[in-house]
Amino acid sequence: MKTIGILGSTGSIGTQTLQVIDTFPGDYKIKYLTAHNNVEKLAGQALVYNPDTVCIVQKEKQPQLEELLKGIDVTVVSGRKALLETAGRDDVDLTLNGLVGAAGMEPTIEAIKNGVNVALSNKESMVMAGEIINELLEKHSCKLFPIDSEHSAIWQCLTGESKHQIKRIVLTGSGGPFRTKPRDEFNQITLEQALQHPNWEMGNKITIDSATMMNKGLEVIETFWLFGVKSSQIDIIVHPESIIHSMVEFVDGSVKAQLGVPDMKIPIQYALTYPHHCPSNWENLDLTTIGKLHFEKPDLDKFPCISLAYKALEKGGTAPVVLNVANDETVAAFLNKYISFIQIPDLIEEALNQHEWTDSHDIETIFHISKWTTQFIQDQIAAYA
Amino acid sequence: MKTIGILGSTGSIGTQTLQVIDTFPGDYKIKYLTAHNNVEKLAGQALVYNPDTVCIVQKEKQPQLEELLKGIDVTVVSGRKALLETAGRDDVDLTLNGLVGAAGMEPTIEAIKNGVNVALSNKESMVMAGEIINELLEKHSCKLFPIDSEHSAIWQCLTGESKHQIKRIVLTGSGGPFRTKPRDEFNQITLEQALQHPNWEMGNKITIDSATMMNKGLEVIETFWLFGVKSSQIDIIVHPESIIHSMVEFVDGSVKAQLGVPDMKIPIQYALTYPHHCPSNWENLDLTTIGKLHFEKPDLDKFPCISLAYKALEKGGTAPVVLNVANDETVAAFLNKYISFIQIPDLIEEALNQHEWTDSHDIETIFHISKWTTQFIQDQIAAYA
Repeated sequence: MKTIGILGSTGSIGTQTLQVIDTFPGDYKIKYLTAHNNVEKLAGQALVYNPDTVCIVQKEKQPQLEELLKGIDVTVVSGRKALLETAGRDDVDLTLNGLVGAAGMEPTIEAIKNGVNVALSNKESMVMAGEIINELLEKHSCKLFPIDSEHSAIWQCLTGESKHQIKRIVLTGSGGPFRTKPRDEFNQITLEQALQHPNWEMGNKITIDSATMMNKGLEVIETFWLFGVKSSQIDIIVHPESIIHSMVEFVDGSVKAQLGVPDMKIPIQYALTYPHHCPSNWENLDLTTIGKLHFEKPDLDKFPCISLAYKALEKGGTAPVVLNVANDETVAAFLNKYISFIQIPDLIEEALNQHEWTDSHDIETIFHISKWTTQFIQDQIAAYA
Repeated sequence: MKTIGILGSTGSIGTQTLQVIDTFPGDYKIKYLTAHNNVEKLAGQALVYNPDTVCIVQKEKQPQLEELLKGIDVTVVSGRKALLETAGRDDVDLTLNGLVGAAGMEPTIEAIKNGVNVALSNKESMVMAGEIINELLEKHSCKLFPIDSEHSAIWQCLTGESKHQIKRIVLTGSGGPFRTKPRDEFNQITLEQALQHPNWEMGNKITIDSATMMNKGLEVIETFWLFGVKSSQIDIIVHPESIIHSMVEFVDGSVKAQLGVPDMKIPIQYALTYPHHCPSNWENLDLTTIGKLHFEKPDLDKFPCISLAYKALEKGGTAPVVLNVANDETVAAFLNKYISFIQIPDLIEEALNQHEWTDSHDIETIFHISKWTTQFIQDQIAAYA
């Protein structure tokens, strides 16, 4: 039996992880579950999966959670500090990090520092602290198992292959809901339109990232740190059907791709069962029913977030941190209808231009520049209001 | 330096193999070259690659070959027996078998019996003698490196993976030149039309096999023996662009595919450099230029050779031998304009129905039933004439 802790168990990835685990009765023991504020759902999960600890990040929700779980033998903790302590537990075989945004970075670091492998859905961890995390993985002999469909695809394509024989990694992206929308209509995009992803059922934050295509930008940076290639070796192709999840081109011109129906349960399961493919009943791919797969170049004018991400990666140092935090903040503001869709890239670019860049990679610098970026974006938004 | 012998060096695969070798100066020493009857081309290759032996199968061409090579230090041999002796040389690291049709089977066996790994383009070897060849590979600790684009794709998709986790293998096929031709026009198909393959530059025999889709049928049988799956686990999908060369679906629903431009030099090179991908200058795949990939089910009514092959595989024993030899003979007859396109499957089916089936797998049975099949088809054709 594998012991596992789930960070962000009530979110999209956490919920689907539990669905996967349901199909392997007796194979996984869940030691802890954490959630941001969805106390009812967390309590419900605790009653089913019987973890020894549940953590609710919003401290004020602790009494309600305790009430819901009274009579069962579970430790209830709350707050950011408790989240980090939980993430740092060394009595699990695997920590699954399904947290959203920059808040997911420290828990990844805590798990690795305590010698635990991490199934990582939180791409922001690698975007902000890729170098630190790679050093810690080496130091603590730990592994990251990517859960993003794209990075799971690349990881699977590299099974048994040498990284030194990679010519190019091709990240595929659906192009989001605005792939065919003319650029001059982007200023009228509503929140409701942006939340309609054509293929994937995902959380709100990543759905907006997909609409701006910043999602691909963040994935480029994550790819850089996960697979040790140069930024010039990472390309993006728009593939509206989201069937080919990504590709690796080798130096001899041979290309490997991983395909599947757009269902996060497949990469989640692979991260749990790695290095094995285990039998499942998820929907099978039938290319003859799908009929056609389309491919096109991404429109960099319509989706400036892509170029911002490449620039931040090439600049290095604090630039990807600013990119990521500014994106977190602007997406949250867009979700709250404080700013428009096209203000997202504008504000991120402004933050990148205005911040005092350093090439330092230490965690204090990351915290410092994160705070600065949050403040900067909030000030900008306040100025508009 | 790797020493290599090339069987069928003047054919399509042999010629492209030498083009690949040209790009690795100093890495390969060619010990022998063999050809069926193209004496000028064989002599030209010998002058460039300086093998110690050349073999021309048509005995009457030996004097001409000797004349063309006089003054250089090369042994000239001829005839089928000399071909088999050459194929059985144990002083090469790799034998590349680019022979066409049933004639390629024995040379494969000779190489393996002498402990030599085989880069196998001759799919008929496995169709006729898969079980014998697998036993010999085991006994002599040898390996087969498939050169068919489809089997190279499957092989590459299985790198680092366990065969036990395969759910399904999906062979892709272009559908050939008659994919969209209505069935009721098949009786008017000319040789010239059948030789126009939409994507691949190949020899005549395999081009006709592609037009009848027997090529896919033979590949199903080859897949069965190469990868140890059941026939019910092997599917065919028509994919007109020939970009996805084949796929493996694992038990968890994850699918791996190998892609590339339709260029046999990529799988040839991989068989030569295995387990490495080595830098090359072959054309790269650009999916955004291609734009669309199409997939459809094969039309089993239009292409009865597919069902004949599945039936022969499921029947086992001598049935695949009859299928293969009857196909060799009918395709040769079609190339000589003795029979029409639609007579190819009809005659193969007749041979399958008429032959005295046994489940014996020994080589004598294969020879015996091959002779019977050749005679049967020739008698049938004579009866039409």
